[in-house]
Amino acid sequence: MSLPSRITINEEGPREGFQIEPGPIPTADKIALVDALSETGLTHIQVCSFVNPKKVPGMADADAIACGIKRKPGVQYTGLWLNEKGLDRAIANGCLDIIGKMSLTVSVEFLRQNQNVTHEENLALMRRLRDAYIDRNIPIDRVMVMSAFGCNFQGDVSPDDVLARVADLVEMAAERDMAIPMLSLADTMGWATPERIKRMLGAVRDRYPDLPLNLHLHDTRGLGIANAYAGLEMGVANFDTSVAGLGGCPFAGHKGAAGNVCTEDLVFMCEEMGIETGVDLDKLLDAALLAERIVGHPLPGMVKRGGSLSAKRKEIAA
Amino acid sequence: MSLPSRITINEEGPREGFQIEPGPIPTADKIALVDALSETGLTHIQVCSFVNPKKVPGMADADAIACGIKRKPGVQYTGLWLNEKGLDRAIANGCLDIIGKMSLTVSVEFLRQNQNVTHEENLALMRRLRDAYIDRNIPIDRVMVMSAFGCNFQGDVSPDDVLARVADLVEMAAERDMAIPMLSLADTMGWATPERIKRMLGAVRDRYPDLPLNLHLHDTRGLGIANAYAGLEMGVANFDTSVAGLGGCPFAGHKGAAGNVCTEDLVFMCEEMGIETGVDLDKLLDAALLAERIVGHPLPGMVKRGGSLSAKRKEIAA
Repeated sequence: MSLPSRITINEEGPREGFQIEPGPIPTADKIALVDALSETGLTHIQVCSFVNPKKVPGMADADAIACGIKRKPGVQYTGLWLNEKGLDRAIANGCLDIIGKMSLTVSVEFLRQNQNVTHEENLALMRRLRDAYIDRNIPIDRVMVMSAFGCNFQGDVSPDDVLARVADLVEMAAERDMAIPMLSLADTMGWATPERIKRMLGAVRDRYPDLPLNLHLHDTRGLGIANAYAGLEMGVANFDTSVAGLGGCPFAGHKGAAGNVCTEDLVFMCEEMGIETGVDLDKLLDAALLAERIVGHPLPGMVKRGGSLSAKRKEIAA
Repeated sequence: MSLPSRITINEEGPREGFQIEPGPIPTADKIALVDALSETGLTHIQVCSFVNPKKVPGMADADAIACGIKRKPGVQYTGLWLNEKGLDRAIANGCLDIIGKMSLTVSVEFLRQNQNVTHEENLALMRRLRDAYIDRNIPIDRVMVMSAFGCNFQGDVSPDDVLARVADLVEMAAERDMAIPMLSLADTMGWATPERIKRMLGAVRDRYPDLPLNLHLHDTRGLGIANAYAGLEMGVANFDTSVAGLGGCPFAGHKGAAGNVCTEDLVFMCEEMGIETGVDLDKLLDAALLAERIVGHPLPGMVKRGGSLSAKRKEIAA
């Protein structure tokens, strides 16, 4: 495979970050970050999640965030939900783009701890969500396999484990003649290495050669950017990322759980390798610094500290 | 190229970190960190630098550190020097392994700002160091090219720029029939990307197919571990690293300059990909946490937060 010439980034920092930060973060600050991200050239921004505010108090103001942002034409603003109730709230809110996703999890133990359901119950839930999407003319943009590279509760994951979940998703879609525009593999708990990325993507691509792939990578053990590079080497052109590295999964059973691979670090790497992202790195660095000011503590992204090379090149030329 | 089956790591954290930390760090703490590293399976530890204490006050106690450590058989303990005066101090100290290096820098402007010498003066200095090594029977373990991937003062670097410096070093060695055991390319200011690593290593290997290669990577813009992976893909089996990501280059003219790629994150990645390092990751994580306690602030390495997967696998099996 050769590197893609262009990638698309799904920014999940606002949702990821505001979900896990101890806070409370003022709603106006959450909106300000989304508005700053809107000016960077990013085209997909996940703004909030419609989840139980008792479990995720940082998202109790999801409705206010969603309706407070200044929508920029050409940008898709989405929310996250885990079940029909969340979907109903997102639709009732009315301020976001309603895009469906269906996700299954390799690790049944993670599913139990994360959502307190069995794999069979999760399959049934996803079928109900699928039907809701079809009945309400809601487009889906992807199916996802969570904990696709390993799990803190269940251990290593084989390509066959992942292929079994992908087959479940393909079957579910086929039952209602639903097309699958993209498959996302999520390294929910930071078990991926570059070689595992290649092996897993290779196995999926052997079976489903025409299915576009997304990677959702967490940086829990510091390999996020190397894993993203391995994905690029496999031709992956769609990534979930988090500005400044905001976030972490509150349900990963793991106090060291980190956020997604950092948006600006990935943009920097890609642009420096000649891969277009459509994102203005300098504006994105401003947004990353804003995120840091909002949460009030250092965030992991490195380029916001080290500075862009385009800025250095300008200094040198001047 | 295929991945190497085994790599060797040169631990530079103590020297890197104690050089740049505002401190003052008690000498006993510096010694305690080296002693902890000695128990991890690391075989090459750079302990201190013999540089001007007025410029680098954190290394004013270099002699006491060098003679205070508990030497473990099989481990090479080295110091850094930049000139004959430093070499004389290291020899007079008598407690370390005296191993010579010769380094040239692609960027003449960095050389001027860093050491206040011209390229020609640096060539002359290296010839004098070379002669001192030969005259005193000091083995050399490598030659280095600094700022081999780009420079904050001079900008981008081409393979031809690097090859010109390598040719200088090869010529210098040939003049005295000195063998070159290894060539190190240093990303002194964090300009490397995985693709630049591959292009540069490819160009060097085309010209010098039998010369073993080392990478000295700084994580200033967050790509350190991805660059290391690209190096592994090119068959590089020797890396300079820094425990917990300690350090940064005080002379890089850059407040965001970061330390070397983090030792335990590289060890983690390699071991999880089946590449032997000879290092006990759990002991190394203890040393990384000790480094963090010693400096009194968070250090960048991620696995010390996220935890090793071998530990997770044991928990799951239990």
